[in-house]
Amino acid sequence: MRFVRALTTCALPVSRRGVISSTHFPRTCSFLKPYIAKALHCTISVTIMATEDSLRKSLSQKQSNIDLQGNAVRQLKSSGASKPEIEAAVKALNDLKLEKASIESQLQAALSGSGSSSGNRDAFRQAVVNTLERRLFFIPSFKIYRGVAGLYDYGPPGCSVKSNVLAFWRQHFVLEENMLEVDCPCVTPEVVLKASGHVEKFTDLMVKDEKTGTCYRADHLLKDYCKEKLEKDFSLSAEKAAELKHVLAVLDDLSSEQLGAKIKEYGITAPDTKNPLSDPYPFNLMFQTSIGPSGVSPGYMRPETAQGIFVNFKDLYYYNGNKLPFAAAQIGQAFRNEISPRQGLLRVREFTLAEIEHFVDPQDKSHPKFSDVAKLEFLMFPRDEQVSGQSAKKLQLGEAVSRGTVNNETLGYFIGRVYLFLTQLGIDKDRLRFRQHLANEMAHYAADCWDAEIESSYGWIECVGIADRSAYDLRAHSEKSSVALVAQEKFSEPREVEKLVITPIKKELGLAFKGNQRMVTEALEAMEEKVAMEMKADLESKGEVEFHVCTLGKNVTIKKSMVSISKEIKKEHQRVFTPSVIEPSFGIGRIIYCLYEHSFYTRPSKAGDEQQNVFRFPPLVAPIKCTVFPLVQNQQYEEVAKLISKSLTAAGISHKIDITGTSIGKRYARTDELGVPFAITVDSTSSVTVRERDSKDQVRVDVDKVASVVREVTDGLSSWADVLKMYPLHSSGTAEE
Amino acid sequence: MRFVRALTTCALPVSRRGVISSTHFPRTCSFLKPYIAKALHCTISVTIMATEDSLRKSLSQKQSNIDLQGNAVRQLKSSGASKPEIEAAVKALNDLKLEKASIESQLQAALSGSGSSSGNRDAFRQAVVNTLERRLFFIPSFKIYRGVAGLYDYGPPGCSVKSNVLAFWRQHFVLEENMLEVDCPCVTPEVVLKASGHVEKFTDLMVKDEKTGTCYRADHLLKDYCKEKLEKDFSLSAEKAAELKHVLAVLDDLSSEQLGAKIKEYGITAPDTKNPLSDPYPFNLMFQTSIGPSGVSPGYMRPETAQGIFVNFKDLYYYNGNKLPFAAAQIGQAFRNEISPRQGLLRVREFTLAEIEHFVDPQDKSHPKFSDVAKLEFLMFPRDEQVSGQSAKKLQLGEAVSRGTVNNETLGYFIGRVYLFLTQLGIDKDRLRFRQHLANEMAHYAADCWDAEIESSYGWIECVGIADRSAYDLRAHSEKSSVALVAQEKFSEPREVEKLVITPIKKELGLAFKGNQRMVTEALEAMEEKVAMEMKADLESKGEVEFHVCTLGKNVTIKKSMVSISKEIKKEHQRVFTPSVIEPSFGIGRIIYCLYEHSFYTRPSKAGDEQQNVFRFPPLVAPIKCTVFPLVQNQQYEEVAKLISKSLTAAGISHKIDITGTSIGKRYARTDELGVPFAITVDSTSSVTVRERDSKDQVRVDVDKVASVVREVTDGLSSWADVLKMYPLHSSGTAEE
Repeated sequence: MRFVRALTTCALPVSRRGVISSTHFPRTCSFLKPYIAKALHCTISVTIMATEDSLRKSLSQKQSNIDLQGNAVRQLKSSGASKPEIEAAVKALNDLKLEKASIESQLQAALSGSGSSSGNRDAFRQAVVNTLERRLFFIPSFKIYRGVAGLYDYGPPGCSVKSNVLAFWRQHFVLEENMLEVDCPCVTPEVVLKASGHVEKFTDLMVKDEKTGTCYRADHLLKDYCKEKLEKDFSLSAEKAAELKHVLAVLDDLSSEQLGAKIKEYGITAPDTKNPLSDPYPFNLMFQTSIGPSGVSPGYMRPETAQGIFVNFKDLYYYNGNKLPFAAAQIGQAFRNEISPRQGLLRVREFTLAEIEHFVDPQDKSHPKFSDVAKLEFLMFPRDEQVSGQSAKKLQLGEAVSRGTVNNETLGYFIGRVYLFLTQLGIDKDRLRFRQHLANEMAHYAADCWDAEIESSYGWIECVGIADRSAYDLRAHSEKSSVALVAQEKFSEPREVEKLVITPIKKELGLAFKGNQRMVTEALEAMEEKVAMEMKADLESKGEVEFHVCTLGKNVTIKKSMVSISKEIKKEHQRVFTPSVIEPSFGIGRIIYCLYEHSFYTRPSKAGDEQQNVFRFPPLVAPIKCTVFPLVQNQQYEEVAKLISKSLTAAGISHKIDITGTSIGKRYARTDELGVPFAITVDSTSSVTVRERDSKDQVRVDVDKVASVVREVTDGLSSWADVLKMYPLHSSGTAEE
Repeated sequence: MRFVRALTTCALPVSRRGVISSTHFPRTCSFLKPYIAKALHCTISVTIMATEDSLRKSLSQKQSNIDLQGNAVRQLKSSGASKPEIEAAVKALNDLKLEKASIESQLQAALSGSGSSSGNRDAFRQAVVNTLERRLFFIPSFKIYRGVAGLYDYGPPGCSVKSNVLAFWRQHFVLEENMLEVDCPCVTPEVVLKASGHVEKFTDLMVKDEKTGTCYRADHLLKDYCKEKLEKDFSLSAEKAAELKHVLAVLDDLSSEQLGAKIKEYGITAPDTKNPLSDPYPFNLMFQTSIGPSGVSPGYMRPETAQGIFVNFKDLYYYNGNKLPFAAAQIGQAFRNEISPRQGLLRVREFTLAEIEHFVDPQDKSHPKFSDVAKLEFLMFPRDEQVSGQSAKKLQLGEAVSRGTVNNETLGYFIGRVYLFLTQLGIDKDRLRFRQHLANEMAHYAADCWDAEIESSYGWIECVGIADRSAYDLRAHSEKSSVALVAQEKFSEPREVEKLVITPIKKELGLAFKGNQRMVTEALEAMEEKVAMEMKADLESKGEVEFHVCTLGKNVTIKKSMVSISKEIKKEHQRVFTPSVIEPSFGIGRIIYCLYEHSFYTRPSKAGDEQQNVFRFPPLVAPIKCTVFPLVQNQQYEEVAKLISKSLTAAGISHKIDITGTSIGKRYARTDELGVPFAITVDSTSSVTVRERDSKDQVRVDVDKVASVVREVTDGLSSWADVLKMYPLHSSGTAEE
């Protein structure tokens, strides 16, 4: 059982597996499914596994041969065999030992081979993260007080990237789709999160060091144990290795008891002290607080923004003219009090979510604009491909919907829009896939669910969840609040509807069941159509029937005289129903982190003596769009630079003037590392040089035109290629010196 | 003692007084100042007070006359006086009673006279708030669960207004001034808020119903009591009335003991139950939580965003090339667990702050761009004018700074920028004033402090605080974290500086003070220049001197042989200092609420049979910029409408199509109430009508040009007057039908 609702991700996310594994949030009733589906999902290292497996087998074979040969040698010696005989036996033993050593080094190579590719990934990640931290894209929060695990600040360029991503999100989703954006508080009273299920079930399993009280995530410890054994213990039998791998594959699905049993079985202790550990128990991941001074109104910091929308459904539906479909959206902070966020940027305790709840008639999930995205082709990873061990493949979205791979048009439409959103931000389309949830990952009420996963140095990271959650959330709040969260469809003319009518005959029931009459009556009235029609048939044929009354916990005998069951035709003027909700949910911090990785590259400096870092951000997300550099320190040039700066400001272009005496080449390198796409170098008072970051192309533009040229290209009204056509290429090397 | 740091305001604020009165946050050491300053600050109702005072006096005079005359009548009767004599006395008594009744009704009129103007205000506010709530500008949060006091959602149009205000704030402050924007978490560890003083002092005084435990704000109860008495008790003596008014004037300055004493003296009980109340005690207004699972790391939801900037000073200073001045900015949620937010939208528990921390060399607070704002003239309310009972007056900002009314250029620059920001948003400049803090309102370390106050139906509301907080915050975090938060000024050539050198002679001190030697030595070394030079002079003239050692709590005798004091010339290459910080802090929700009030008006419908509501938002903040209405339901017109909608979307103009069959007049009225500035009515397939909300002027524009015309005027590139010049006025009445 896992956390099936969308994502509730981290700002700077990490999960070494393709799926967010952290949270056991069984709002779903999909109980443990056969392990095989999950295990098959990990197809990447199949070859490595095969090699490793046979090596482990020959290793243990070799070890028993060595044992046998050792015994043989000892026997020869004790039985006083001849010297040549003994020498031959010893030589055979030594050959066996050499062979074993050779297999050991092959095994080590096989393991560290997969390790060395992960070593490259680690080095790449380190280069990205170092640059990000040095240039204040992010800062560990409260650093001067030695920080708090899982809390990070966005420094100036990071904050700017974030606000660009959010502005584009608003344009791409809220404006384009006329969504109703709302903004609800983070502080949330308990009743709301009881209805949503978070109070009871938004938990991770935790173990405590029995002596010091230090807390650990139970699955983390088991995972670490298995990985360590597999990577470093050469004496591990092939069977044991297979078992540990199996445990890793099903880690997310283990119950509290199963996790505890494994921890005991493997003798896992507290990592810091080697003290024994407690049994696992659930820890609620919400930050708890108290609303008002009395201490009697518990509240939580919201774990997602969606609930704020659900509780407002009635007003929003009214605002939309009582019409479906419509979507509401919210951008805001969400909170998760992680037990031990061990991996720096990966898993954070406070993050920005952007969520959409698209309310739709469950009987009509078509989308009027689906044709706009139907022709898109991109990597999809349907359930069947995962279970049968294939990999993601390019599919046309229109076909995926018409074949039923994607459940409905509206879900498909959002998948397409998310694809466009992410790729326009600068996510590499070849490292983006849409993975369908397996049956055991989905809540029982969910109709279908796809995650936008982005490949990073941590593997495939879930960054957007797109789920058809059916009517679950609205129903939960309807029940708890007793406010009907429903929609009506008024019929243009009344419709005739066949309705089941169950009429208990009170007198007969009273005589037969006395004090239990009410329970029996209620149970009869609550029968579903199928059950009732069966009873009707049985009563007609047999005259009486056995009937189980849950509230009595036993069967009673119902006679034909006790109840009348029929179907009647009624006229109805409208249909009242709970809308389905389709929920695209974006982990903004995760998207931004993946964007950093996809945008980062290095290139040699002009002198060739060092590697320079570049972020190839599209202008849309670049934290600063443009720099202005006077070529040399000179009052005339500085005046021109200030003039240009003024017109850039007026055009709303974020930019930076650098009038230091540093060489132009160094100034370029400094801003390439911030991902600034354009640089204006003032090298005359009439026209200036505009340089593009990735191509390093330069053109000459008049001083009074340069702001509008930069504006057009940063606003996406024209491309750099258009600029190259309009303005003369400037080949002088001066600027790059 | 009050909450002196900027504002920490509410999203939809209220305070019936001009100043935010809620919070007693004595980060200041300005102890209770004479009451007169505060009392004089309330100048509005001076005339009313004078009338009321004299009426109360004649009323009580009349009552004693009635008592005397009553006695006289009784005496005449008992002494058997003549009938005419008695009748004359009774007539005199009745005349007195009539006179008393007349004075009573005058008093009632005087009181309800001020009340009826507040009645008008209440009615206006109710009209605004009703419209805001009906059109979902805001929604009481978690309404289906009967809500939580002090929590409100922004519904679709409110959310849009908010994001427009924030986008403009970013453009006006962050972009224009090249500020370093950061984004820090709301969850904050205790150590940070201990350093800032919030853990100890961010409190309000609370009393509890001794039987039910219900909590009340102590000052609220006292305030209610005084107001009720003054408004409804005609038997109140003029002296008693003056006393109650005095209590109201000094309410914010009362200590816990003083508040408790007044509550006892007036016999105030719990409003709901009339039970006795506890003594007042402080309640910390921060939402508390626990970080991580162990329960040993307390944390709070931040009460302001500023601390996130202070703790990052070192990194930000480095990012800025180790140069001063620079400003950092942050927009984000802040939290205040109010004891009893009684007044709906007024005082909320979660709100959006936008804060700027401008770091500057304390020796040079000039501002290079001050001349850009120096010529601005607007209402200012300096300290002297408040104390001498005058009212706010128009001053030129440049003069206010040069005369020293405003402490320095940088503070003045921000006052000017805030003025421009607020008026460009649509705040009426005649209902906006900048009020200087009185001496007793300011923290001891603050150099100067001005609030931007906006007049609303609740009186003058503090919406922006602009404070020169000197080096206080950086010093506090330096001390607590042991990380130096300082700046350096490198001298172009070394400077000779005269430095005080104090050299304790350890041997002599040891002999004289034995175990106390260290305390005496440290006290000597800690002497300020003035004290040290006096000691030097005294030692030279008298040979010994009495010296108070704080840590010993007593005086000791210091002899000439025990310490050497001198001034030496030293060469210094740089100056190290803690920067001053100038902090403009914006309560975004309060600004938006005042904007609503300043933008709201009603006008008769065309038929004249009802009043229609209009918000005259400037395009910059309007939640929707434009509507598109096909004049009649007709496929051709709907096609054109969709075409226009597409080009508006491409231009990034938020808009709404309304294809219902409702009359154009009703559709206009509906969107006027949302403050939509422009409406495009499709009444032909070649050209369309564009209507401006407030003038109701209409022009005809070609279909293919209309999106760009609307874009220019909503982006502020041209005005409606420009549009009127370019396009023919359309006088046909069709559209408004």
